[in-house]
Amino acid sequence: MPFELTRDYISNLKELIDQYDSKTVRELISSLHSADIAEIFNELTSEEARFLYMLLDGETRADVLIEMEEDARERFLKVLSGEEIAKQLITEMDSDDAADVIGELSEELQEEVLQHIKDVDQAGVIVDLLNYDEDTAGGLMAKELIKVNENWDIPTCIREMRKQAEDVDEVYFVYVVDNNNVLLGILSLKKLLLARRDARIKNLYKSDIISVRADTHREEVANIMNKYDLVVLPVVDSIGRLIGRITIDDVVDVIREEAERDYQLISGISEDVEPTDNIFMLTRARLPWLAIGLLGGILAALVLSSYEDELRIYPEMAFFIPLIAAMGGNVGVQSSAIIVQGLASKTLGIESTGRKLLKELYVAILNGLILSTIAFLYNLVRQESFSLTITVSTALLSVILFASFFGTFIPLLLRRFNIDPALATGPFITTMNDIIGLFIYLIIGRLFYGIF
Amino acid sequence: MPFELTRDYISNLKELIDQYDSKTVRELISSLHSADIAEIFNELTSEEARFLYMLLDGETRADVLIEMEEDARERFLKVLSGEEIAKQLITEMDSDDAADVIGELSEELQEEVLQHIKDVDQAGVIVDLLNYDEDTAGGLMAKELIKVNENWDIPTCIREMRKQAEDVDEVYFVYVVDNNNVLLGILSLKKLLLARRDARIKNLYKSDIISVRADTHREEVANIMNKYDLVVLPVVDSIGRLIGRITIDDVVDVIREEAERDYQLISGISEDVEPTDNIFMLTRARLPWLAIGLLGGILAALVLSSYEDELRIYPEMAFFIPLIAAMGGNVGVQSSAIIVQGLASKTLGIESTGRKLLKELYVAILNGLILSTIAFLYNLVRQESFSLTITVSTALLSVILFASFFGTFIPLLLRRFNIDPALATGPFITTMNDIIGLFIYLIIGRLFYGIF
Repeated sequence: MPFELTRDYISNLKELIDQYDSKTVRELISSLHSADIAEIFNELTSEEARFLYMLLDGETRADVLIEMEEDARERFLKVLSGEEIAKQLITEMDSDDAADVIGELSEELQEEVLQHIKDVDQAGVIVDLLNYDEDTAGGLMAKELIKVNENWDIPTCIREMRKQAEDVDEVYFVYVVDNNNVLLGILSLKKLLLARRDARIKNLYKSDIISVRADTHREEVANIMNKYDLVVLPVVDSIGRLIGRITIDDVVDVIREEAERDYQLISGISEDVEPTDNIFMLTRARLPWLAIGLLGGILAALVLSSYEDELRIYPEMAFFIPLIAAMGGNVGVQSSAIIVQGLASKTLGIESTGRKLLKELYVAILNGLILSTIAFLYNLVRQESFSLTITVSTALLSVILFASFFGTFIPLLLRRFNIDPALATGPFITTMNDIIGLFIYLIIGRLFYGIF
Repeated sequence: MPFELTRDYISNLKELIDQYDSKTVRELISSLHSADIAEIFNELTSEEARFLYMLLDGETRADVLIEMEEDARERFLKVLSGEEIAKQLITEMDSDDAADVIGELSEELQEEVLQHIKDVDQAGVIVDLLNYDEDTAGGLMAKELIKVNENWDIPTCIREMRKQAEDVDEVYFVYVVDNNNVLLGILSLKKLLLARRDARIKNLYKSDIISVRADTHREEVANIMNKYDLVVLPVVDSIGRLIGRITIDDVVDVIREEAERDYQLISGISEDVEPTDNIFMLTRARLPWLAIGLLGGILAALVLSSYEDELRIYPEMAFFIPLIAAMGGNVGVQSSAIIVQGLASKTLGIESTGRKLLKELYVAILNGLILSTIAFLYNLVRQESFSLTITVSTALLSVILFASFFGTFIPLLLRRFNIDPALATGPFITTMNDIIGLFIYLIIGRLFYGIF
C-alpha cells in the first residue's frame, strides 16, 4: 500500500537527523519510493536535506531530485557545487529530466554543470534539448529510446535492443525507422515477444501511427495523447526523422499544470502558488486582482457619486446595487468559464462564433427572464414603488444579457488573437461587468424614475 | 500528423451520407483513428450516425463508441437493439469499457444486453465490474491482464502469455502471482525479452511494487499514479489477490474530470455541461447559482433598507457598497481556491489547521493594510468627510480579514466532515461573504458616523 507522510514521521526523522543517526535514518527510508523521499525533502531544512541526501545512492538521489517540488529543488541545489550536480545527479538522469533540472539553474551554474559532465554525448544531448522552448514537444521529450531498422530480423533486433536498452528505464514500444532515421512505425514488445524468430521487422510493425513535430505546443501534445490514449508519443523533425519521445507521465503533469493555471486565473490568483509557499509570495500572488477590484470599486464609487442627488431622493435605488453588481459578475464568469473550458478540452465542436453567441444569448434570455420575474414579484409583494420595481427587473435582465454576451465574446476574441482565453475569466472582465452592470442600472433608473 | 476536424469536412461528409455514397464515405474514413471517427459522430444526426456505423468493422465500432462523448453515445445507443449492442459492440470491448457502457444504460436494457452476450465468462466479468462503485479503483479497473506464476521458467511464461495476450490490447507489464493468485510483483516485458531462456520468473520480477485495493477512491488512484509515474496500477482484493489493473489513460480522464468539476464549481456551474449541450441544459446548469445570487442580492437589499435613513442623510455611504461587496467575495474565493487546490493535489504539506489559518491571517493583514491605505489616500485626496474615509478603510480591512478567514476555514471544515471542499468555492460562500461584508460596512459606518 502507498506510503502516507505524517507529522509524527517527519518529527521523528528530524530528531534522528539531529542526532546524526545515519543507521536508523537509512533503515527508515530504505523501503521508500523516491517520490516519497522527495515529499520528505520538501519538509526539511537545507542542512537536514543535505544529511539525508548523503545517505542515498546515486540513482535514488537523481530520482528524488526530479520528484521534488521546484522551489524545494532550487533551495536544495544551492547547497551543492556545479561539479556535484553534474557528477552525482545529472549523469544518472534521463535526458529530459537532466535538461529540465539544468534549465532551472542560473546561466553561470548551467555552464559549470555542463562542463563537468564527462560523457560528451550526454552533454551534447542536454544542450540540444535546452534549445527547445519548454512549452513545446521538444521541451517535453527525452532522447532515450529504442529504435530498430525495418530491414532487421528478430535476433538482430533483440541484440541491438540489448545495447540500447541500458539507457532506457521502461520500454513499451520499439520505434521502427528506415536507413535515414525517418520514423516508419512502432512495434509493441508484445508482438516482438510473441513473434516467430525468423520474422522480419518490416512485416510486424504498425505503420499507421501518430507523431508530433518538435515545435508542437505542449497543450496540443497533451490533447493528442489524451484523445488517442497514448502512453508514448514519438517526436519527429521537419522531415520526419525520429528525434525523441514523450511519455504520458510528463503529459499528466502538463494537464495538471494547465488545469491549475486556469483554476488560479478564475480565482484571481496571478502566480503559481501553493499553500506551503511563504507569506510574501502568497500576498504578491493575490494583490494584483484585489488591486484591480479596488480600482473597480473606486470607479463604481465615482459613477455612483454622479447620481448623488437621485440617491438622496430615492435611497431605495441603493438597496439593489449589490444585486446588480453581483449578477453581472456571476453571469460573466459562468459564460466565459464554459467557453474557456470548451476551448481547453477541444469540446467546443465546430459551431461558428455567431452560433455560439446566439446560443449564449438564448440561455441568457431564459435565465434573465426567470430571475427578473422573481425580482419583480418580490418588489411587488414588498409594495415598493413601481419605478423601483420596473427599474430593478429591467436592469437585471439587461445586465444578464450584456454580461453573458461579454463573457462569451471576450475569450473567443482573445483566442482569435492567440492570447490565452483563460485571461477573460480573471479580474479585469469581472470588474468590467460589475461596473458596466451598475452603469446600466443607473441609466435605466434615471429613465424610469423620469417616466413613472 | 493528427487529424483536424473542420466544418468543411463535416458538411462534405454529411452530403455524401445523404447521397448514400457508401464507397466514398468508406474511403474518407478508412485512414482515421477511432477517436477521430468518434468526433465526427458527435456532429451527426442519429440517422447519419447509423449509416456511418454500418460502414465500420466490428472492432472500430466498439472503439468509436467508447471514444464518443457520453451524451452522443446515449443518443446513438437508442437506435440500436439490446441484441445489436451486445453482439456488435460489447463483445469487442475490454471489460472496463464494456461495464462503463452497460452501466450507462437503463436497467431494463442492461439486462437485455447482458442476456445477449454469448460468452458467459465475459458476461460474468461485466456483472462483477458493475458491482463496484464507479468512483473507486474497482470501477476503473479492467479484468484483462497477463499474469504468470512465480515458479514458471521463461518458455512456460511465454507460452502462457501467448494464450492470455489475445484478450489484452497493449501489454507493458506481466504480473507475477503465487499459487493462490496473490500479487507478488511485476515483470517488465523488457526484462523478459532480454532475459536468458533458462532464467526463472522468481529471480527476475520486481517485488517492491505499488498496488491499490478495489475500494480506493478514484481521486486517490489518480494521485498515486501521478505521484509514482505509473502507467498501469494493479488492483487487489482485501487479502492481496490480483483482481484487475487500471491503465493511465483512464486516470488521465479522471484527472481531467476532477479538474473540470472544480472549475465548474468555482465558476458557478452546477452540472457537467459542454458548450455543445442544448440551451435548456445550459440554462439549468447555471440557474442555481444565479438564484442563490439573487437571494443574496435580496437579502443585501433588506439589510440596506434598514439603513434607509442613514443612506438618505449620507448618500456617499452607498458609493462604496460595490467595493466592499466585491472585495469580500474576491478575497474569499482566493483563499478557498488555494486550500481546495492544495487539498486536491496533496500539496498542502503537513502544517496543522491552526498554522494554515494563522498564515492566511498574515497574508490577509498584509493585503488588507495595503488596500485600505490606498482607499484611505484616495478619499483623503478627494476630500471626502473623515467619517466616510475612516469607515471605508476600516471596513475594507475588516472585510478582507473576515473573508480570508472564512474562505480558509470552510473548506477545511468540509474536508473534516468528508464533504467535497470544492463546494466552498461555489455560490453559497461567495454570497455569504458579500452579505456579511456589507453588514460589517454598515455597522462600522453607523459607529464612525456616530463618533465623528
